[in-house]
Amino acid sequence: MMKHLVLQTDFGISDGAVSAMYGVAYSVDTELTISDLTHDIPEYNIWEASYRLYQTIPYWPKETVFISVVDPGVGSDRLSVVARTKEGHYIVTPNNGTLSHIASHIGIESIREIDEEINRLPRSGESYTFHGRDVYAYTGARLAAGVITFEEVGPEVDRASLVHLNVCSATRKETSIHGTIDILDVRFGNVWTNISRELCVEAGFKYGDALEVTIKRNNKEVYKHQMTFSRSFAESHLGEPLLYVNSVDHIGIAMNQGSFAQAYHIGTGSNWKIHLKAI
Amino acid sequence: MMKHLVLQTDFGISDGAVSAMYGVAYSVDTELTISDLTHDIPEYNIWEASYRLYQTIPYWPKETVFISVVDPGVGSDRLSVVARTKEGHYIVTPNNGTLSHIASHIGIESIREIDEEINRLPRSGESYTFHGRDVYAYTGARLAAGVITFEEVGPEVDRASLVHLNVCSATRKETSIHGTIDILDVRFGNVWTNISRELCVEAGFKYGDALEVTIKRNNKEVYKHQMTFSRSFAESHLGEPLLYVNSVDHIGIAMNQGSFAQAYHIGTGSNWKIHLKAI
Amino acid sequence: MMKHLVLQTDFGISDGAVSAMYGVAYSVDTELTISDLTHDIPEYNIWEASYRLYQTIPYWPKETVFISVVDPGVGSDRLSVVARTKEGHYIVTPNNGTLSHIASHIGIESIREIDEEINRLPRSGESYTFHGRDVYAYTGARLAAGVITFEEVGPEVDRASLVHLNVCSATRKETSIHGTIDILDVRFGNVWTNISRELCVEAGFKYGDALEVTIKRNNKEVYKHQMTFSRSFAESHLGEPLLYVNSVDHIGIAMNQGSFAQAYHIGTGSNWKIHLKAI
Repeated sequence: MMKHLVLQTDFGISDGAVSAMYGVAYSVDTELTISDLTHDIPEYNIWEASYRLYQTIPYWPKETVFISVVDPGVGSDRLSVVARTKEGHYIVTPNNGTLSHIASHIGIESIREIDEEINRLPRSGESYTFHGRDVYAYTGARLAAGVITFEEVGPEVDRASLVHLNVCSATRKETSIHGTIDILDVRFGNVWTNISRELCVEAGFKYGDALEVTIKRNNKEVYKHQMTFSRSFAESHLGEPLLYVNSVDHIGIAMNQGSFAQAYHIGTGSNWKIHLKAI
Repeated sequence: MMKHLVLQTDFGISDGAVSAMYGVAYSVDTELTISDLTHDIPEYNIWEASYRLYQTIPYWPKETVFISVVDPGVGSDRLSVVARTKEGHYIVTPNNGTLSHIASHIGIESIREIDEEINRLPRSGESYTFHGRDVYAYTGARLAAGVITFEEVGPEVDRASLVHLNVCSATRKETSIHGTIDILDVRFGNVWTNISRELCVEAGFKYGDALEVTIKRNNKEVYKHQMTFSRSFAESHLGEPLLYVNSVDHIGIAMNQGSFAQAYHIGTGSNWKIHLKAI
Repeated sequence: MMKHLVLQTDFGISDGAVSAMYGVAYSVDTELTISDLTHDIPEYNIWEASYRLYQTIPYWPKETVFISVVDPGVGSDRLSVVARTKEGHYIVTPNNGTLSHIASHIGIESIREIDEEINRLPRSGESYTFHGRDVYAYTGARLAAGVITFEEVGPEVDRASLVHLNVCSATRKETSIHGTIDILDVRFGNVWTNISRELCVEAGFKYGDALEVTIKRNNKEVYKHQMTFSRSFAESHLGEPLLYVNSVDHIGIAMNQGSFAQAYHIGTGSNWKIHLKAI
């Protein structure tokens, strides 16, 4: 059976780059089903590429082949790899940190280096700047179409050589949880933390509870206030901030029909800490 | 035969939300054909979601299943429904006004409430904020793939309970037509009214006629000038405003290769009135 | 076998226009495979539409049908045509210059005018402003699905009547090359020239060479500096400008993880000249 092919890049969709990747893939097998995760990863932002894979992959059929090309080191000696996750999805990507969230939260079963002697678009030898088309789309399509097996991608690579970004875990001490702000739901201005719903259950937080929320940037307080832990946005007033469980089962902060991130100039990364406390 | 599945949301395409919906749908049936209406509906703008469905649906094969998720009330007690139109298309959506233009211009044949006991992604029980993925994509895919029939969506709902936005009709008195500005063709800066071509025919307007055009916001005049009723943009000079029949057979105002909406700060809604008069 | 259908427009993807084209095409044949080149061509920018086709088409299977609708003259007497390229791809487009780069670099084998008596969406007779949906999507889908042959598109048109934009060639004199700036890789801020890799080989330029780069706008110098001719971005320091071979085998200028175009306010077109010289 034909596997699905799903593409993610930081190329945008304003020129022909993504469509050239589609063309290469359909040239491998015209019956492939191809779609897009997103092509709007901010340029060179490997962290966000890693997070978007983690957010999306679990909802796809097993054996789906994902290609993720956010590749500031194109043309350097960074490896090109295909990873097989513990849940049976494949990811074709440079080994530069894109697999961090998947490795931390789902697990990588096995990694193979792409052997470019075999798995490279014929007659693309003089192009060193568009591996997305010449190596990744070509290899991903061949894997999805069953032209090559996972083993035929190339030699196995030790999982220890996987490049890892620093994916922090949240920690609990009684009814107090320390976490970080992982990413923004940019369009709606929501803030997504690394605090899981389970950790809140362990802390004894229940829907309807008021919690004290503190946000710090580089240890400097930028927000401190009470919020209600709500089942949904509809339970709050317009413009009222609230804590909720987001679509990846972590704690988010939203402002009903407003932008919490914009209102308080919230950013993301390991220097953005959040603290939840029962009151 | 497999039906088509077409998605519309206000999620944007910069993160993994839309792709997660694709993944859920393909997990229901890997052979589905899925495409996008748009994901760029302005956040929470139910009016525009309703209009875009109306603009697009008539061009799709009968039995196509549309999913429209612009849902400020996610998690509230607003109903989730599937409507069957009089032309034989299906629309999966919260009952919050999204069906207004279709109901007014095409007609709704029957509505069913989604029974979430059956029609909800398994193991998504703790997520109350992403019904687009967990309820709408899942149900729409099952309907498109023939896993469930329309009847198996859930119990029938009285059409009287449909939430309606105020879709105004234009009115004619002899050679004078009063209407409202429904929406902008944002990219090209064109203004789309609720005045149909037929009404212009009844008023005796012919291509080449000069008409007096008055635009008022809250009864205050913001534009008054003559324009030619033109068959196409090419009949006017660069930068010259003109009246034309748009792609949904209504009267639009364009400025050849310029933006009429921007030039005169035109907005949309029932407080934006337009008046056409023979001279 | 079913051909692929690929769409390019300047419509954007924020309303229902592109989806209506999909619907028309699927109504012709529900089994078609449709995808997007881009819908973000700047409004009315025929040059860019022409370039994006040239950048993308060679990577698609032969017989693929492309539709390109950037059509400031919609409704005028400009011809609607289907061209067959020398490599066996089809392009459905207004004859307004969109085929310029393909004609110059790949070659057009034959052109036919669309006979709108046959090849026009039934009952679309009163719409003069959306040929993308009513003529181009309909005709392209019928051609891709095999409902009509290329000959049945309409009468053959003399290739001499093809509208050509001025696609300049770069010229070499010993170790000095004069060219123009064709287009920007907007997202990454790279500048793409019309100077081919072959011309650099003829000039004796080798990877690692330092070259003197001069950029002039209307014969006025806006940039003059040495750059290294690099195999890849990874060979330069962050923020350092470099010459490289881009994905269409021409010379580009990049600034590693910065925007060269923005840094030096570089534009495109025949009044933007570039000069490379050995030093």
